[in-house]
Amino acid sequence: MPRVGGIEAGGTKFVCAAGSGPEDLEVAEFPTTTPSATIRRVIDFFQAGQPVTAIGIASFGPIDPNPESPTFGYITSTPKPGWRNFDFAGTVQRALGTPVAFDTDVNAAALAESRWGAARGVRNFMYVTVGTGIGGGALIDGRLLHGRLHPEMGHIRIPHDLQRDPFGGACPYHGDCLEGLAAGPAIQSRWGQPARQLPDGHAAWDLEAEYLALGIVNWACTLSPQRIILGGGVMQRRELFSKIRVQVDRLLNKYLELPELVPPELGTRAGVLGAIAMANPPSTPGLDFAS
Amino acid sequence: MPRVGGIEAGGTKFVCAAGSGPEDLEVAEFPTTTPSATIRRVIDFFQAGQPVTAIGIASFGPIDPNPESPTFGYITSTPKPGWRNFDFAGTVQRALGTPVAFDTDVNAAALAESRWGAARGVRNFMYVTVGTGIGGGALIDGRLLHGRLHPEMGHIRIPHDLQRDPFGGACPYHGDCLEGLAAGPAIQSRWGQPARQLPDGHAAWDLEAEYLALGIVNWACTLSPQRIILGGGVMQRRELFSKIRVQVDRLLNKYLELPELVPPELGTRAGVLGAIAMANPPSTPGLDFAS
Repeated sequence: MPRVGGIEAGGTKFVCAAGSGPEDLEVAEFPTTTPSATIRRVIDFFQAGQPVTAIGIASFGPIDPNPESPTFGYITSTPKPGWRNFDFAGTVQRALGTPVAFDTDVNAAALAESRWGAARGVRNFMYVTVGTGIGGGALIDGRLLHGRLHPEMGHIRIPHDLQRDPFGGACPYHGDCLEGLAAGPAIQSRWGQPARQLPDGHAAWDLEAEYLALGIVNWACTLSPQRIILGGGVMQRRELFSKIRVQVDRLLNKYLELPELVPPELGTRAGVLGAIAMANPPSTPGLDFAS
Repeated sequence: MPRVGGIEAGGTKFVCAAGSGPEDLEVAEFPTTTPSATIRRVIDFFQAGQPVTAIGIASFGPIDPNPESPTFGYITSTPKPGWRNFDFAGTVQRALGTPVAFDTDVNAAALAESRWGAARGVRNFMYVTVGTGIGGGALIDGRLLHGRLHPEMGHIRIPHDLQRDPFGGACPYHGDCLEGLAAGPAIQSRWGQPARQLPDGHAAWDLEAEYLALGIVNWACTLSPQRIILGGGVMQRRELFSKIRVQVDRLLNKYLELPELVPPELGTRAGVLGAIAMANPPSTPGLDFAS
């Protein structure tokens, strides 16, 4: 197996890795600051180690992952200061001189879970992360879904009962889209403390399960996945899985079969392992890992 | 071009056709009654004409379009009396002795618009019909989206302000899902007259545009289509297009690019032409028309 590089670029931290898979991986993490300072640390990481034959970048978004576009490899309309219109793939490619693959963090995580984790052998599934934001990636008939650019699944609109939940939503673009209602910052703003400090049995978890179930129903009606992997910091709260299943079941009302809802198997390494997978695609018949 | 057959099975009428494409098509229409009486007329149509080498069926749903499933070719959980668990493809195949392709009416319409209509050359698009129900089909990177079975895009949940619109929704499964709020029967129940009798400028059209825009935003965030074709009886009201564009623009709030919203080019023939296309797939490199 060739030694390749992976970069998982998150809104709060970067994870860099070199190796060939889960059993062979050197990893470094550091906080996301400005593009120039952060990329400097990325370059230092790769220059300090053995050479890599290619690098995959799994980035927060929105991004342009279309190799035929003039802005391929850019982060585009992110609200994150300094990163808008940053030529991420080009900067890394020029600094290190290796081929660079570029996709969203959630597409990468989906790829990693397909190759090494909770979706081995499943041709139609989604990977959804519920953390600082909400994002989703999907494999459709074994191929990563890009569409024109890439999905932005967290920004769907769902029913929001203002009498029950007067919180207006935390998304700077859309207010009470799913991410605005159910990502970590929304939970913290609504209840006055971080999600991880809210006890089991708190009303927050019933409301969270209802919002996530609405998202799951909408994605399932649109994509018809067999399985949905639910990861990210908020989903560390394991009681959410059973609560969400009850709500999805109620909402679908036997019209459609419930998709399987499972935790990731690669945990916090899914993103950077996806970047490794992007840089080192297998030649599996019937599976197309081209980014 | 071989002469093939197409069957568009709708909830209120069947359209049968034989030929090779839009310029070469014999068509017959009759009302949908019981399965046995309706299929009798289908068989009579094909037995009365020149032989066809294959037949495509574009059916209302939910259906099982997976050729590897034991219930391939069945209509499954439809609320339509008599049609639940009907072996549609098998009945036609046994009666006529020809190979049968089987898919949803909206997947078929998407295929027809891709081959002969409003999506020629577009690799990522959706076809949505707004009529007796709301349904959607999608081509992703040139291939029909099936997922585990097929999308049921009309049944997504969207925000519903009960103060502004106290109508509870008309979907027998989900009440106020998108179809329950915005399909033809919902418009008729809410306003007391059929959609086609409501004048231009009626408040119904602003509300309809808002609901459809919410659906479009949710589908676009999930699938990232370049273009969305909006067809069906309700979309005959052309002022809806500009109203919907304004609402989608407002909802996306410059976070994502607006997908192109266009009317179909094949009109009421899209479904049966899609059935013809399913029975007569082209060998276009890069496009996979296997059902």
